[in-house]
Amino acid sequence: MRGSRPRVKPLEGLNGHAHSPSDYDAEQYELPGDEYINGPLPTPFPRKGKGPAYEEGGVIDWQREEAAERERKRILASHRGFRGLTARLADAGSMWLVTILTGLGIGTAGAWLDVLVRWLGDLREGRCAYGFFYNQVMCCSGLDPGELCYEWQTWSEYLHIKWIFVQSLLQSSIAFAGSAAVLVKYYAPYAFHTGIPEIKAILDGYVLDSFLSPWTLLIKALGLALAVASGLSLGKEGPLVHVSCCLALLLSKMFKQIHRNEARKRKMLAAAAVAGVSVAFGSPLGGVLFGLEELDTFAKGTDVMWRGFVTSVIAAMALQYIDPFGLGKLVLFQVQITDETTVWRAFELIPWLILSVLGGLLGSLLIRLNARAAVYRRSSALNSWPTLEVVCVSAITAVVCYLVVFLRVQSSELVANLFMECDPVRGDYHGLCNTTATWANVFLLILTAGTKLVLTAWTFGMMIPAGIFLPTIAIGACLGRAVGLITQGLQRAYPQAWIFLSCPPEPNARCVSPGFYAVIGASAMLGGVTRMTVSLVVILFELTGALSHVLPIMISVMVSKWVGDYFGKEGIYSIWIAMRAYPWLPPSEFRDKGETAADVMKPAADLVVIAEDLAGGCELQDVDQLVRMYRFHGFPVLCGETLVGYATRDNLRAALDTLIAEDLASGQRRRCTFAPRPMQPESNFVDLSTVLEDAVLQMRPEMPLELVVSTFQKLNLRHILFSRGGVLFGMVTKTDIVHLFTAQFPYTSALSEKGW
Amino acid sequence: MRGSRPRVKPLEGLNGHAHSPSDYDAEQYELPGDEYINGPLPTPFPRKGKGPAYEEGGVIDWQREEAAERERKRILASHRGFRGLTARLADAGSMWLVTILTGLGIGTAGAWLDVLVRWLGDLREGRCAYGFFYNQVMCCSGLDPGELCYEWQTWSEYLHIKWIFVQSLLQSSIAFAGSAAVLVKYYAPYAFHTGIPEIKAILDGYVLDSFLSPWTLLIKALGLALAVASGLSLGKEGPLVHVSCCLALLLSKMFKQIHRNEARKRKMLAAAAVAGVSVAFGSPLGGVLFGLEELDTFAKGTDVMWRGFVTSVIAAMALQYIDPFGLGKLVLFQVQITDETTVWRAFELIPWLILSVLGGLLGSLLIRLNARAAVYRRSSALNSWPTLEVVCVSAITAVVCYLVVFLRVQSSELVANLFMECDPVRGDYHGLCNTTATWANVFLLILTAGTKLVLTAWTFGMMIPAGIFLPTIAIGACLGRAVGLITQGLQRAYPQAWIFLSCPPEPNARCVSPGFYAVIGASAMLGGVTRMTVSLVVILFELTGALSHVLPIMISVMVSKWVGDYFGKEGIYSIWIAMRAYPWLPPSEFRDKGETAADVMKPAADLVVIAEDLAGGCELQDVDQLVRMYRFHGFPVLCGETLVGYATRDNLRAALDTLIAEDLASGQRRRCTFAPRPMQPESNFVDLSTVLEDAVLQMRPEMPLELVVSTFQKLNLRHILFSRGGVLFGMVTKTDIVHLFTAQFPYTSALSEKGW
Repeated sequence: MRGSRPRVKPLEGLNGHAHSPSDYDAEQYELPGDEYINGPLPTPFPRKGKGPAYEEGGVIDWQREEAAERERKRILASHRGFRGLTARLADAGSMWLVTILTGLGIGTAGAWLDVLVRWLGDLREGRCAYGFFYNQVMCCSGLDPGELCYEWQTWSEYLHIKWIFVQSLLQSSIAFAGSAAVLVKYYAPYAFHTGIPEIKAILDGYVLDSFLSPWTLLIKALGLALAVASGLSLGKEGPLVHVSCCLALLLSKMFKQIHRNEARKRKMLAAAAVAGVSVAFGSPLGGVLFGLEELDTFAKGTDVMWRGFVTSVIAAMALQYIDPFGLGKLVLFQVQITDETTVWRAFELIPWLILSVLGGLLGSLLIRLNARAAVYRRSSALNSWPTLEVVCVSAITAVVCYLVVFLRVQSSELVANLFMECDPVRGDYHGLCNTTATWANVFLLILTAGTKLVLTAWTFGMMIPAGIFLPTIAIGACLGRAVGLITQGLQRAYPQAWIFLSCPPEPNARCVSPGFYAVIGASAMLGGVTRMTVSLVVILFELTGALSHVLPIMISVMVSKWVGDYFGKEGIYSIWIAMRAYPWLPPSEFRDKGETAADVMKPAADLVVIAEDLAGGCELQDVDQLVRMYRFHGFPVLCGETLVGYATRDNLRAALDTLIAEDLASGQRRRCTFAPRPMQPESNFVDLSTVLEDAVLQMRPEMPLELVVSTFQKLNLRHILFSRGGVLFGMVTKTDIVHLFTAQFPYTSALSEKGW
Repeated sequence: MRGSRPRVKPLEGLNGHAHSPSDYDAEQYELPGDEYINGPLPTPFPRKGKGPAYEEGGVIDWQREEAAERERKRILASHRGFRGLTARLADAGSMWLVTILTGLGIGTAGAWLDVLVRWLGDLREGRCAYGFFYNQVMCCSGLDPGELCYEWQTWSEYLHIKWIFVQSLLQSSIAFAGSAAVLVKYYAPYAFHTGIPEIKAILDGYVLDSFLSPWTLLIKALGLALAVASGLSLGKEGPLVHVSCCLALLLSKMFKQIHRNEARKRKMLAAAAVAGVSVAFGSPLGGVLFGLEELDTFAKGTDVMWRGFVTSVIAAMALQYIDPFGLGKLVLFQVQITDETTVWRAFELIPWLILSVLGGLLGSLLIRLNARAAVYRRSSALNSWPTLEVVCVSAITAVVCYLVVFLRVQSSELVANLFMECDPVRGDYHGLCNTTATWANVFLLILTAGTKLVLTAWTFGMMIPAGIFLPTIAIGACLGRAVGLITQGLQRAYPQAWIFLSCPPEPNARCVSPGFYAVIGASAMLGGVTRMTVSLVVILFELTGALSHVLPIMISVMVSKWVGDYFGKEGIYSIWIAMRAYPWLPPSEFRDKGETAADVMKPAADLVVIAEDLAGGCELQDVDQLVRMYRFHGFPVLCGETLVGYATRDNLRAALDTLIAEDLASGQRRRCTFAPRPMQPESNFVDLSTVLEDAVLQMRPEMPLELVVSTFQKLNLRHILFSRGGVLFGMVTKTDIVHLFTAQFPYTSALSEKGW
């Protein structure tokens, strides 16, 4: 049977084990539906416009996209004279125009989002006597520090009813959160959550165009402002990255050469994501390193890094120019390191190490709780009532937060105050600097951290835009400040103990700076939750600006990452990618236990292949039937036992459609061959060797698995064929490799079945 | 003839065209001598110690080194209990210990080098009344600004002879430069030049152990101090990177697991190089990005980036702690951006663009002049008299520099003063702020820039340690200040012109800041000479510290790179790598003109292969003879026409030595086979299939050349085999790819023949 016509083994397999659909799970991301087509479908891949198009949920073919880009550039370079020069300038200019506009746009958007959030947040609590549209800061501007602001009235003051304060808080929380949820649910379901997992997957080649639609942009920005203002335990950092990418895609639609090429589009998006981080943290270099470390943008070329850097700086400059906080600082919680606080003592490494270990432990706990909450939400009745869930959680959050003084304010303000050192001139903040109430403050801070941890674990994943960075920083800052207060208390109680001898001997001299402990706590917690290293340190370094304080931050990030890695290597974004089963290949190193490619590859016997006869080739009709029957991306082509090459389904269809039509018209049944062979001119063979892909990698099945994985990572491949002495032994696809990374994680694909 | 015994075609080829030695130029870096061995040599590859060793001048096999490291890690992980834990901790700890010690060491070395240079430099000019060992700054410390320092006396003041000043300057210059040259020539020839080209090549896999020997460390550090102090036109930045790498290698010798594995050693060196840049520029983040952009360290894994970051920060902290300038700043020429100078006006973009274009042009000119000078030096009589050359050049430099006021001081001081704005409080610097002498200053600055350009082009490449960064910055700063003075002059002359209307209307109000023009000039010149982007901007950003000034710096770097690229894509380091013919593959993108792998590969017919018979295998003796005859790294193995695999010469030798000895003892002549085949147990065949390399890549000859190049770049390969349908078509080695990049450059290999 073999050789004379394409192998039809898979059809037999339909009833047997070897080809039950579950065997092809490995390729499911490429093909959302069933991979068997029952009967010939007219157009299984509807094409939009010209050029190759990908289905939502597929992955792009980097090689093909880059080949197309190469071809375009070559044509551009071949134009001569003035026309060629302008064409080339226009081409380079379009990319830079989009880059610059994205930077300006996201800087502006970030600034206005801050203003909006501030206004909405203040609106929850009261109104300005001058007018409804002033927020508290603007209303009270022009006063000296310490002076009371009578122009700003809380709702209870305004209405002279005491209990209305709680009620209005409650009502506005519910109203804000509820409307955010309704907006997201009915207008742009992709606007929920942080968006970073999806962006990582998209940058890696996943196709999810509706995730970056203009509607998503609008709803995400608006919903984010509402969600943050509602007082829920969430941040704006991740969603801002998403907004930035939406904006870049919208702008790039002006130029079809960027929009049409999926590889080029992704390079554009990488720069936009970097700018989003830059604005979110007010840290242009942190953004670039976030792009390098977390989004793996550098793998796409040095020009991507450069473009990301430019976008990032422009965005930060736009933000600084607009100056939403009116402070001339890029972020609300910038730390002022004064001469007094630049020195730290060796004994402080002990509390800092404790904090780092705590950060690692609590970070892992937060990841786990969050994953469980997400899985529970999906499997329980909550799945059908997302808006109601948001409303209930926001009500609970509002009530719980009213009870604890540090929870009552917005997280960013809380963090800003926790990072600041006590200073008699600046005034006290909610009694944090009251030295007689140290232990009460410690208790309240720990309570705040615990409550925030539980609330965040639940909130991150509801049907509203929500970032995880700010809550994590808040939890860490509370813990850090608590540890700082304890250390300070101990030092003041036992100033003569040998461990504190390095402190200045005068009573009441500043020795321990609890504000910097809050920074350390935040960095440890971030390390535990995100498992990033360099970019975290740079972001926190840009907040503090003091080289002397980089070392403790570095140590805390590293220790908390080590502790966290003990309970599972994945950061929160990787966990969400695994739960949603996106085809994303982590850039991290894979260590095999001595396995080779042969242990993971799909053996040749299980593959659907086009097998031609050494002498006779194969029948066109048979190949056509095979291509119609399977929706795989492509098929290996054999001649006898020898591997000839690999042909994609698209190319085969394009070639076959014409040939079969000719056959039908002439009534003949031609045979075809893929292996170049000497043919008599009058022979009936059709040479299909041009259909074969040029860029196919072959390796030996003895290849160590680690090398196979790193080849996939570095070359962005879809598949590798394994052969020995020319004979096909098997194939490994990207999904097989993704599985290697996620297989041990219990919640893999837990959220992937039903869409959003 | 084929099949029954190994192909002996190459022997025939000795007389023909196909195998003249020049054909094997492509592999010459692997084999410094001739690739034909006439008669069997006893031990052609002397092995040092255990494990695989590479010859000086070869390239390492990344795959093999990483496999060895994997194996070591696996064994380490298999140990159980307390012993296993301590072994693993010791392993991780050793790496971190070396990292931290390198950081501390290079920070300290950098600081003391600064002190030494300052002292030596001042010694040229005079002496301190307190004592011989104080330098000018320490001697004059404690004075108010503007007060005259009577304790410091120039030699002419001290000896009351006017003309002795010139003479002493001349004599000490010659003495310093001459002794540096003698040290380099007789003790460590590798200590000459900057060292960055070699480090780039080494990090990429080149083996050049003596380049990083302890002697080189000592001589380079000492020679560098002497060379800088002699007043020659050179900087310390590049050589400091070299010193840092030497130090790291010296420290890593404590731990054989780092020292023995060439891949791990290189990861260590990458972190050290980053720390070197960090100390040289006082810019820890700039160092990390320099590592990413110029040294391509990120390709070696995220852990390398993290380790580089840690080393870099520790080194910068050590430098700050020692504080060699006594200013609390990391670099001498840090820029103080005051509120007055933060604003720049749109019209200033015009002079800045002119500067950027100028930077690109002069950068290219400097590269070209330098390359010509290097080639001329090699081919002329100067080649035999390096010390004399250094002495003469230093004498000429000293005389020429005495004539121009700005050339008389050390470059770093000049740059620091050019970067500073005029400030009546601080006092004038050599009349630079004299508003009545603007045009005289412009003339002097341009003269200084021109002289420095010519001197630098000659000096960079002489037999002394010399960096190119500082002279480039100095040239750029002179030009920038000149353009700034011109702009300022024009603005003051025509304050009512429409272009200057954005300036404040009061007369004598500050509008143009010539100091920042010097920064722009420096960045443009650096962009033109080095062709770096992100890392340059970050280094200069860390100097100025003002976000508002990043945009002009970014634009100037980009424009000067564009202009420079028009005259040749390579930066000065790539040019030197090409001239010395190091096997270094640039990470930059390669654009083919439609070529495929088939156009550059060495066709199968020209390859020396082991070809066994389909039925009979091949004779052990024949294989042995072939391996003895050629010193290639390895040989493709064919069975009939079919490609079976690739066997390295080392592995073959190891296997054959035993087998041949057995044959000699028993008197039989066995046959061997590489293709696994069913064998009768009593057959005389030896199965050599285990000798074949596991990790061999095969591709189709139709593969576009761009993809072949990027595969080499990303996977760090030595070779790729090309086959179609199992039949070998050819092979491409790394050297072929390196040639693609350097072929168009006229001076390729101009300095490579004779060693140092």
